[in-house]
Amino acid sequence: MICNSGSALAAAVSEAGGLGLIGAGSMRPDLFREQIRKARILTGRKFGVNIPLLYPHSPECVEIALAEGVKIFFTSAGSPRKVIGPLKDSGCVVVHVVASPALAVKCRDAGCDAVVCEGFEAGGHNGREEITTMVLVPECVAAVDIPVIAAGGIATGSQMAAALALGAEGVQIGSRFAVSLESSGHVAFKQAVVDAGPGDTRLVLKAHVPVRLLKNAFRDRITALESGGATREALVAELGTGRARLGMLEGDLDEGELEIGQVSGLINDIPAVSEIMDRLLTGYEETVRKLHSTN
Amino acid sequence: MICNSGSALAAAVSEAGGLGLIGAGSMRPDLFREQIRKARILTGRKFGVNIPLLYPHSPECVEIALAEGVKIFFTSAGSPRKVIGPLKDSGCVVVHVVASPALAVKCRDAGCDAVVCEGFEAGGHNGREEITTMVLVPECVAAVDIPVIAAGGIATGSQMAAALALGAEGVQIGSRFAVSLESSGHVAFKQAVVDAGPGDTRLVLKAHVPVRLLKNAFRDRITALESGGATREALVAELGTGRARLGMLEGDLDEGELEIGQVSGLINDIPAVSEIMDRLLTGYEETVRKLHSTN
Repeated sequence: MICNSGSALAAAVSEAGGLGLIGAGSMRPDLFREQIRKARILTGRKFGVNIPLLYPHSPECVEIALAEGVKIFFTSAGSPRKVIGPLKDSGCVVVHVVASPALAVKCRDAGCDAVVCEGFEAGGHNGREEITTMVLVPECVAAVDIPVIAAGGIATGSQMAAALALGAEGVQIGSRFAVSLESSGHVAFKQAVVDAGPGDTRLVLKAHVPVRLLKNAFRDRITALESGGATREALVAELGTGRARLGMLEGDLDEGELEIGQVSGLINDIPAVSEIMDRLLTGYEETVRKLHSTN
Repeated sequence: MICNSGSALAAAVSEAGGLGLIGAGSMRPDLFREQIRKARILTGRKFGVNIPLLYPHSPECVEIALAEGVKIFFTSAGSPRKVIGPLKDSGCVVVHVVASPALAVKCRDAGCDAVVCEGFEAGGHNGREEITTMVLVPECVAAVDIPVIAAGGIATGSQMAAALALGAEGVQIGSRFAVSLESSGHVAFKQAVVDAGPGDTRLVLKAHVPVRLLKNAFRDRITALESGGATREALVAELGTGRARLGMLEGDLDEGELEIGQVSGLINDIPAVSEIMDRLLTGYEETVRKLHSTN
């Protein structure tokens, strides 16, 4: 069970028996280093990092994490070939996030130890393929012999059991842990997710960088531009910069980008990470027991 | 295990231990009556009908099926309130297809015996909510106390186990049975599905009647119109009429509508229905055993 976040949440997930990941996201390298050091103070357990490879400072983030002694690297949004050499030379585990079985094959060929299959229902940045977890996981399991970790649409023990039934060897959970006491998200953002109903998230900006967002004034404008046939340039101009920070960390529910998964319709409270983990494991075991007893 | 089709396929599914459904689709009432009579010759087992409620002749199809002694009615695309009274008075089982938990609640309130939850990944006509099976099934299970049947993204025993892990009490399988020896689809259409790769289907015509189609020249034109901000009228004009028949029954792979689920990426052959059923059950049992033994 893997979760992607800032130091407090990553450490809490590792303390609770999962694998916390510090997400570099668009973080400046100095802040990223500080987050790794903070997590090390907060937990003696293993944690990893997730580094999107599309930013100019991504290579620097990889170097920093290596220098800080991180041994588990999740990479996304780019080719793992760019960075895998020095990581494997240093004995690191390298896992890349994919949205298609074709990319899973490329990752295996590049030497990745595992892939995260992220389905259409996942929150935030996403692939263009629109393949859902139900279909993507078995497609990737059939395509590669390295472990497949399922992501997208997983917030409960039943969904975890479903992902493992599909052939995944583990799950990556974003939205559920993002709405926890330990998450660094703004409380207004967490509450907005709790209040969200089914169907309130949509994948938008497909012509630019596809991203799943909760409904708000900003997303409505993007949707209107898209259905009016706006150019990529017009969309990028409307997007501007810093909207994710504005929405999720500063709590501007109207003008910020509110990145969250479709599973937000099933998230109804803001508990501690340890409580979430208990529910996941209990729900998983109950589901498997029930399936077995009715087989 | 439920499957939606013409008489030969519906009868074969019922013979193999599932519940075959004769889909009225846009069938003329006379043809629909004939299909029911043919199925009755082909099998002594129970079968049902699926009647979309949006066509002018839908009420006539309901009357025909009732007169022919059908006892299991699946309805879709409209409100079950329109037809449920006489059906329940005649002792029929009524199941409505939904794409959101809100509609599941309306169906329960209307007196439906169960709902089919059809996820975003399902082939053919679909909801506007874009909620995937992984999320929709647990949302509907939480929303209503009547049985929930999962549909969308289910072509293997592992996917069946995943659907049941999510809380479904049964599954409805379209695409996998549509690509069988007994299906009335044109062999060129079946082969096109076998040849299709991951990501080759997309949900289009969202502003009109959302439908998931396999990539071809016709769908490419629709997609180009949509991304250019075309009006609903322009889309309807391009769509014309009879395209589903042209593509799926007459085998025009360029200009027909090729309705199939995203799971087509996992469909690699054209077996008999009995063989498909064996694979589903064997795969399901293996999956549940494996989950239980590693718990």
